[in-house]
Amino acid sequence: MREVFRQDLQQIADLLTQMATLVRSAIGNANQALNQVDLQLAERVIEEDVRIDELQQELDELAINVLARQAPVAGDLRNVVAALRMSASVERMGDLARHVAQLVRIRYPEHAIPEQVRPIFVEMGQYAEKIADATIELLESRGLDQVPAINEVDEKLDDLHRSVFQAVAANWDGSGESAIDVALASRYYERFGDHAVSVSKKVEYLLTGDW
Amino acid sequence: MREVFRQDLQQIADLLTQMATLVRSAIGNANQALNQVDLQLAERVIEEDVRIDELQQELDELAINVLARQAPVAGDLRNVVAALRMSASVERMGDLARHVAQLVRIRYPEHAIPEQVRPIFVEMGQYAEKIADATIELLESRGLDQVPAINEVDEKLDDLHRSVFQAVAANWDGSGESAIDVALASRYYERFGDHAVSVSKKVEYLLTGDW
Repeated sequence: MREVFRQDLQQIADLLTQMATLVRSAIGNANQALNQVDLQLAERVIEEDVRIDELQQELDELAINVLARQAPVAGDLRNVVAALRMSASVERMGDLARHVAQLVRIRYPEHAIPEQVRPIFVEMGQYAEKIADATIELLESRGLDQVPAINEVDEKLDDLHRSVFQAVAANWDGSGESAIDVALASRYYERFGDHAVSVSKKVEYLLTGDW
Repeated sequence: MREVFRQDLQQIADLLTQMATLVRSAIGNANQALNQVDLQLAERVIEEDVRIDELQQELDELAINVLARQAPVAGDLRNVVAALRMSASVERMGDLARHVAQLVRIRYPEHAIPEQVRPIFVEMGQYAEKIADATIELLESRGLDQVPAINEVDEKLDDLHRSVFQAVAANWDGSGESAIDVALASRYYERFGDHAVSVSKKVEYLLTGDW
C-alpha cells in the first residue's frame, strides 16, 4: 500500500514536470511564432495545448484518487493539495502561450505587434522563457532555490508590461485595433509570470506548511 | 466526529457563498464606479477585495484541515476538493472586479471608457452582475438549475467582448492609451464570466463525479 502511494505521489510530481516542460516549449514556440510571423508554428502551439489540458486532467484525477484511497496526512496531504493547485496554474500558463499563438494566427500575414513596441515584446518573450525554465527546475528540485529568480523575472515582466502601456500612451501611430492587440498580448505575458509565482508559492507552502 | 465533519462542510459551503456575495457586491460597485466615474466607490471595491482574499484563505485552510482530520471519501471528498477549486475561481472574480475599479481610479476624473463604446460596457456590467447572481444561487442550491443561465450569460459576455474589438477596429477616434484601457476592461468582464463557468463546472462535478 505504502509502495503504491509513493508511486502515485511520484507520478503526480512527474505529470506536473511534464506539463511545465510542455508549457516551456509552448511559450518558446509562441514567442518565435510572434517574432517571425510563423503561422505553422502558431498552429502547433494551439494544437499542442490540448496535451497540457489532458495531462492536467490526468493529474487531477490521480490526485483525487490518492486522497480517496490513501487519505494522506501532514506533508503528503500538502503535497497532493498543492499539486492540484499547481496543475491549475501551469495549465493556465499553457493557455496564455496559446493566446499569444492565436493572436499570431488572427493577424497573419501581418505582424501582430507594431514595430514601435516589438523590442519590448522580444524581451517579454525571453523573460517568459526564463520563468518557465525556472518553474521546471523548481518543480524538479522542490527546493526554494528558484523562488528569488522567479520573483525577479516576474517583476521584470510587470515592468515591461507597464512600459508597453507607456510607449502606447506617449506616442502611438498605430490603429486602435493594434493597440488592443498590444494590450492583450502584453497582459498574457504578465499573467504568465503571475502564474509561475503562484506555483512557487505552492512549493513554499510544501516546504513550510504556510499556505 | 461526524457532527464536527458536517459542521465543517457546512462552514466551507457558507464561506464560498459569502465570498460570492462579496464578489456580487464588488462587481456591482465596480460597474457603478465605472459608469458614473465614482472614485470613492472605486476605492471601496479595491479595499473590500482584501476581505474576499481573507475568506479564501480561511476556506482553503479549513478544507485542508478537513482532509487531514476526516479523510473524507466519495461525495464528501469531491465536495472539499471542488470547494478548493471554486474558492480560487471566486477569489479571481473579486480580483477582476478590483481591476475594473483600479482602472476607474487611474483615469479619474476622466471616464475610463470613451463614449463610443460605453453602451457596450454598460451591458457587460449588467451581464456580469447577472452571472454573479446566478453563481450565488448555484452555490446555495448546489443544483444544476443555474448552469444553462451561466453558460448563456458567459456567451453574451464573449459576444460583447468581441463587439468591443469590432467597434475599435471599425472606427476608433480615441488614443492608443484609451484603446488599451478598453481592451483590458473588456477582458476583465470576459474573464469574470469564464470563472463563473468554472464554478458551475465544479458543481456539475459534485453532482455527477465527472471532473
